Amino acid sequence: MKRISILGSTGSIGQSTLSVVEKYPDRFSVVALAAGNNVDLLEHQVRRFKPAVVSMFSQGPAEVLKKRLSGMKIRVVSGIEGMIEVAADDEADVTVSAIVGTAGLVPTMAAIRAGKTIALANKEVLVTAGELVMRECAERKISLLPVDSEHSAIFQCLLAGENRDVRTLILTASGGPFRRHTKQDLAAVTLAQALKHPNWTMGRKITIDSATLMNKGLEVVEARWLFGLPPERIKVLVHPQSIVHSMVEYRDGAVVAQLGMPDMRGPIAYALSYPERLEGVSPALDLAGIGTLTFEEPDTERFPCIALAFDALRTGGSMPAVLSAANEVAVTHFLDEKIAYGDIARVIRSTMDAHTPSLIHSVEDALKADLWARKKAEKVIENGR
Amino acid sequence: MKRISILGSTGSIGQSTLSVVEKYPDRFSVVALAAGNNVDLLEHQVRRFKPAVVSMFSQGPAEVLKKRLSGMKIRVVSGIEGMIEVAADDEADVTVSAIVGTAGLVPTMAAIRAGKTIALANKEVLVTAGELVMRECAERKISLLPVDSEHSAIFQCLLAGENRDVRTLILTASGGPFRRHTKQDLAAVTLAQALKHPNWTMGRKITIDSATLMNKGLEVVEARWLFGLPPERIKVLVHPQSIVHSMVEYRDGAVVAQLGMPDMRGPIAYALSYPERLEGVSPALDLAGIGTLTFEEPDTERFPCIALAFDALRTGGSMPAVLSAANEVAVTHFLDEKIAYGDIARVIRSTMDAHTPSLIHSVEDALKADLWARKKAEKVIENGR
Repeated sequence: MKRISILGSTGSIGQSTLSVVEKYPDRFSVVALAAGNNVDLLEHQVRRFKPAVVSMFSQGPAEVLKKRLSGMKIRVVSGIEGMIEVAADDEADVTVSAIVGTAGLVPTMAAIRAGKTIALANKEVLVTAGELVMRECAERKISLLPVDSEHSAIFQCLLAGENRDVRTLILTASGGPFRRHTKQDLAAVTLAQALKHPNWTMGRKITIDSATLMNKGLEVVEARWLFGLPPERIKVLVHPQSIVHSMVEYRDGAVVAQLGMPDMRGPIAYALSYPERLEGVSPALDLAGIGTLTFEEPDTERFPCIALAFDALRTGGSMPAVLSAANEVAVTHFLDEKIAYGDIARVIRSTMDAHTPSLIHSVEDALKADLWARKKAEKVIENGR
Repeated sequence: MKRISILGSTGSIGQSTLSVVEKYPDRFSVVALAAGNNVDLLEHQVRRFKPAVVSMFSQGPAEVLKKRLSGMKIRVVSGIEGMIEVAADDEADVTVSAIVGTAGLVPTMAAIRAGKTIALANKEVLVTAGELVMRECAERKISLLPVDSEHSAIFQCLLAGENRDVRTLILTASGGPFRRHTKQDLAAVTLAQALKHPNWTMGRKITIDSATLMNKGLEVVEARWLFGLPPERIKVLVHPQSIVHSMVEYRDGAVVAQLGMPDMRGPIAYALSYPERLEGVSPALDLAGIGTLTFEEPDTERFPCIALAFDALRTGGSMPAVLSAANEVAVTHFLDEKIAYGDIARVIRSTMDAHTPSLIHSVEDALKADLWARKKAEKVIENGR
């Protein structure tokens, strides 16, 4: 029985994680949950999974939840301290890090320092402080298992060979809803269009990142740290059907790929049960039924966010943190319909251009770069209007 | 430095093996070669690779070769004894078993008994006596590495998971040159058409087996023994581009696939260098350039040889040996333009129908079933005309 703590239990990955736990009750139990401010859903999750501790982002909702749960044997906490308590819960074997954004960094680091196995869904942890986080994991011999379908695929494909024989990691990208859009078409896209991902059902922020392909850019940075390969050995390949989740090219010319139906329960369950695989996690893949898989090079002119991510990675230091924070700000403004689709990349580029990169020696350094970029991006947006 | 002995050095796989040896001279050396009756080519190979012993199938050509090589420090032998001497050569670390047909069985078994690692390209060894051969390998802790691109792919894909978590092995098939032919079209195909494989350049017998899909049927039987899975957990999927060389479906729904350009040097080099992979064996795969991969269910009505192979495997005992021997006879007659394409499956089915299956306890039992089937198949062909 693996005891699981979930950071971000009411989000898309958090809910999928709980559906995996529900399906394999003899394998997993939930000991701690941290959520944002969705009291109703967290209450429902608490009653169903009976964790010993739950945390909400703000004190107000935490108080409401506490009252609703009065009579249940449960600790209700809140704030950063609450998240850290859930992340590092004594009873947990595995901490699922699924809080979106830089907010996930501090609690994830707390889980690592508490010796937990990490199932990592949050992108920003590695994008913002990848070198630092991986060093910490190596020193403490912590397993950091990717929950992202692409990185889970690469993790699996790497088992088919020796690390020294890897030539390239090939991250597949659906290409998003605007794959066939011209530059002119792209200038006119709406929020509603950007929120319609062709293959995956995900959170709003990640869905927008998929439409700009920044999602893939951030995954490139993550892959760089997760698998220890330089940017020139990481490639992006557009594959609209999202069946091939990613690939590894070995130096003999062999390519090993992981395929499956687009279903986040696959990589989640794999991260929780690795090295074992559980029966019937995802629906069976019917390749003859699907019939055709296609592949094409990404167009970094129409989708400049990929190029921005590679630039940030090559620059190194604080630049990927700045990329990610500027993107988060830009996407928030786009979700609020305050900037246009095309502004997202522009805001990120202007923020990066204004940044003097520095080394990241601590979580504080990462958060400092993050904060700088947020302020700068807000200014870029203000001045741009 | 790995020292290599090759059974069938002048055939298609033998020549490709030597081209791999030639490319990595600091990795491999050739200590022994066995060929059929192609004196010119074997002489050329001897002068280039300097083995200590060579064998030819017949005594006449062996005498000719001996004269031509007089002055060189080399033993020239012949016949079954000669093949066995090459197979079990004291100096060899790895024996490449690449003689086509049941003729490969006795020398391959000799190599196993002499403790050699086996790089297996011959299909009939496992089809005819799979259970026996695998038992012998297990008892002597012999590694039997597949050279076939499909089995090599499955071998690699199996590294990405635990054996107990495997649900299905999925062997891909190009579908051959007649994939789109109707039953009527198939009745009229010529030898020249059958010899034109769309993707692979191979020996004549295997090219015909690819046109009838018996190639895939035999591979199903091989896979059953190589990987220890029952026939209902082995599937065939038609994939005309021959880029995905085969796949493994795990019980969680994940599918791991091995891809590459169709180039036999890939699986050959992998079998020779495993677990390492050598730099630049096969040309790099350009999936964006290829663009589209397609998949479809095989049509066992138009291509009955696949169904015959599954039938033989389910019956077990001597039936797969009979399938393979009857096929070899039928293909020989088809290559001699003595029977039509459609007769191949008919001859095999009639031979199988007439067979009373028995258990295979020894190589002799396998050869007995093989001989019986050959005679029976010849009779079926005679009576059929």
